[in-house]
Amino acid sequence: MYVRFSLRGKVMAAVAATFVASAASVAAPVHATDSSELSAIRAEVARHHDETVKRLQDWIAQPAIAAEDRGYPAGAEYMAKLARDAGFQQVSIVNTEGKPGVFATLDAGAAKTVGLYFMYDVKQFDPAEWTSPPLEARLVDKAGLGKVLIGRGAVNQKGPEAAFLAALHAIRAAGGKSPVNLVLVAEGEEEIGSPHIGQIVQRPEVQAALAKTVGVFMPSAMQGIDGVVTVNLGSKGVVELELVSSGEKWGRGPGKDIHSSLKAMVDSPNWHLVKALDTLVSDDGNTITVDGYPKPLPLSESERRMIAVASQRRSEAQAKQQLGVQRWIDDLPWQQANERLESQPTINIEGLVGGYTGVGGKTVLPHRAVAKIDMRLVPGMTRDDAVAALKTHLAKRGFGDIEVNVSGGYDPTSTAPDTPLIQAQIATLKKAGIDPLLWPRNAGSYPGYVFTGAPLKLAAGHFGLGHGSGAHGPDEYYLIESTNPKLQGIDGATMSFVEYLYELAN
Amino acid sequence: MYVRFSLRGKVMAAVAATFVASAASVAAPVHATDSSELSAIRAEVARHHDETVKRLQDWIAQPAIAAEDRGYPAGAEYMAKLARDAGFQQVSIVNTEGKPGVFATLDAGAAKTVGLYFMYDVKQFDPAEWTSPPLEARLVDKAGLGKVLIGRGAVNQKGPEAAFLAALHAIRAAGGKSPVNLVLVAEGEEEIGSPHIGQIVQRPEVQAALAKTVGVFMPSAMQGIDGVVTVNLGSKGVVELELVSSGEKWGRGPGKDIHSSLKAMVDSPNWHLVKALDTLVSDDGNTITVDGYPKPLPLSESERRMIAVASQRRSEAQAKQQLGVQRWIDDLPWQQANERLESQPTINIEGLVGGYTGVGGKTVLPHRAVAKIDMRLVPGMTRDDAVAALKTHLAKRGFGDIEVNVSGGYDPTSTAPDTPLIQAQIATLKKAGIDPLLWPRNAGSYPGYVFTGAPLKLAAGHFGLGHGSGAHGPDEYYLIESTNPKLQGIDGATMSFVEYLYELAN
Repeated sequence: MYVRFSLRGKVMAAVAATFVASAASVAAPVHATDSSELSAIRAEVARHHDETVKRLQDWIAQPAIAAEDRGYPAGAEYMAKLARDAGFQQVSIVNTEGKPGVFATLDAGAAKTVGLYFMYDVKQFDPAEWTSPPLEARLVDKAGLGKVLIGRGAVNQKGPEAAFLAALHAIRAAGGKSPVNLVLVAEGEEEIGSPHIGQIVQRPEVQAALAKTVGVFMPSAMQGIDGVVTVNLGSKGVVELELVSSGEKWGRGPGKDIHSSLKAMVDSPNWHLVKALDTLVSDDGNTITVDGYPKPLPLSESERRMIAVASQRRSEAQAKQQLGVQRWIDDLPWQQANERLESQPTINIEGLVGGYTGVGGKTVLPHRAVAKIDMRLVPGMTRDDAVAALKTHLAKRGFGDIEVNVSGGYDPTSTAPDTPLIQAQIATLKKAGIDPLLWPRNAGSYPGYVFTGAPLKLAAGHFGLGHGSGAHGPDEYYLIESTNPKLQGIDGATMSFVEYLYELAN
Repeated sequence: MYVRFSLRGKVMAAVAATFVASAASVAAPVHATDSSELSAIRAEVARHHDETVKRLQDWIAQPAIAAEDRGYPAGAEYMAKLARDAGFQQVSIVNTEGKPGVFATLDAGAAKTVGLYFMYDVKQFDPAEWTSPPLEARLVDKAGLGKVLIGRGAVNQKGPEAAFLAALHAIRAAGGKSPVNLVLVAEGEEEIGSPHIGQIVQRPEVQAALAKTVGVFMPSAMQGIDGVVTVNLGSKGVVELELVSSGEKWGRGPGKDIHSSLKAMVDSPNWHLVKALDTLVSDDGNTITVDGYPKPLPLSESERRMIAVASQRRSEAQAKQQLGVQRWIDDLPWQQANERLESQPTINIEGLVGGYTGVGGKTVLPHRAVAKIDMRLVPGMTRDDAVAALKTHLAKRGFGDIEVNVSGGYDPTSTAPDTPLIQAQIATLKKAGIDPLLWPRNAGSYPGYVFTGAPLKLAAGHFGLGHGSGAHGPDEYYLIESTNPKLQGIDGATMSFVEYLYELAN
């Protein structure tokens, strides 16, 4: 499909991949490393295929889900073990005020050092919605793709991360060393908005280690089903929050749910919330009308060019069909809709929960109503400014009693295309015969700001061939053995990491 | 408490009852019936106390819940059996397009005939919220009250209905006959807004039977915990409906839940719903702003006087404390707040359900959002006019795509205070030493319109001493053995029905 999502919003563009599926077709790159070294590694990847899949299956069987307080600290301990097994010499669990993170380093005696960002947590799931048990990670044939592994975390993000770890195992099995030193930061709260990642990354030893890197990347499955590979140069920021209207805080309305007939003499926190929400966006729901809200930077000329090129190559019809969308906002044409996607901040209602939410009706006047909101931020805006403006606006408009409960979020993140981290991605893809699209930023979000912001100011991104889908939904999958010439299975994904590390070492 | 609720909104006012609790204190009324006849009946009520309680417990063990399609047609068959056992000679189950009703007649060879309205269904319940299993109907000591029966339907409405049936059993056990003939209409969909009661009441044989009655009443537990007994002269009408905003119907927004980052290029059905809701009421949420909405009749002078008297006798402080309310709408003083309660129609949001409603957040742009609404109607308004105005308004304001799914409702209902049905209530209460309040109408609703509207144009109301609370909530109870001199237990309630029937026979 046109956009794929891992976790809280890595919107990956897809893929007219010309990279073909057989292991042999992962062309030996033309660079300083001799091809016999890569051939040896490739042979080890193939030889350890079953072991790699088993490692991923075992990991999926151990979910860590922050929203449910499930699988901690076991998830962090498991992540630490995976890092040690893959050759990281120094591995430590980092406690935070939330769930623990993992910090690890692999010193290969190399000239260059590369940072890695992992998440070991996964999204909640309801087994009843799955055709295959979400923690069993079964291998299933999927038409047009090949053998896929179905399980929670398959593509978001354990599959790509396991493929990266397999790359390190294969390099070692082939008698080699990683061509770069590695610094790994893993967190267990990505799916709740990374509220404590700062407490991991800002530790002095982590800062010192990261400061030596050429940048940080997260293993990813970049190949969309139709085949365009996109290199993203950043991500929007995000704030997740709940707006809570309650009779108790308001001093009007009931202190508990009361009979709805009393609406004739008692105020309604639900209506109060509706009236507050109404002030946040224009009548069409699309332009933010919060007083003093931070303003986005306009798109640059080079960003507009990237969007123009991408809009040519991507199929609008396919995108609409995949999303079930008939019209873009304002009936914009495809290229302008993409410009809007890239340039505009949003205030989105993820959910409304006010009073009775079951089947049919219930004649109550609820005492409490909640809007679950996410606000996406583009360059020029910060999380703190956005939250402050929202609070000031609500107070000024007579809604100062409405609680603004921020649960997570972070600033937007950007990386220049001419950084070694990005140039190495482009080079690796081009050597594999792939002409990647450049894209200004994921419209979704990830906490790259901890790396790209002060004081580190590193490049940061995502990388990895391979394919999967269904992040956050049922039947999430990751392609293990591809029968589709456009898509790599887990061994091809593993080799793409090997090649990227060698490219970064150049 | 000040207001009590049975089912979808019988707002009962409470009770400075001077009626004392011992059976002996149910003073023999001074009327044509000789007091030895009543004494004999009273003795039978006491003698069959355990049997009456057991009959209620067995009934509670058999719930019929229309919203869950649970207990049908068993609930109707059970209701029919209860009626036969109590002496109704002709009992039939009446099928409808929804759940079946029961129609029964008891010919006592009396000069007068009285109608009865029963409901055999109960509200949904969650056993986890109860301190006593909701279907076990256990007897539990409750401080300040005595022995109460805790169970779903205890007060709403099986307890009072069982007390009424016990009155018929006692009259027969004492060797007598009911002083009036009876026509019973029972439905099994009261808790979902009585969508098919017309299909029961409008049958020719039911119409013919009801046409002979002096009016229709529903057994009720009128005694509030503090003791004011209120005679209601009607009820507001109600419409329950869902407003559904969907990408599919709108032709904008997504056809399924998609990633929230896409809000930057895709419209939001949630915002569309919020903007539509915003047009329905004034900024404070309290005045209906639907174009062309039917206008209420103003309160009459006699209604204002009733409210003035009631506002004197009822405790505002207690009402506020019971409801957890700090201020009435517009900071109105007590009497004006009561005038507002009685005179104003409402549009209330029972529940908002838009997208993700679980714990924490989920970064989705939902494809569908629902507002569960109830609209209360006062005299001068009809259900059909209100729904039509709402639909026209939404279409005119650009929300014609929003579905208006009406699930139930009916017109308001009024009965004049000088009707024999009401005069007999007042007389029965006064003979028992109770000075009842008259109240223009329940702010809640019940489908009395099927009796008070054309063509029958009967008087209709509620009656019965006794006390209970917790309708629709956990630990719903009905007082069985009272230790509170202000409140009757089930035997006192039973005797109040006996006395009312004798009064109606006069």
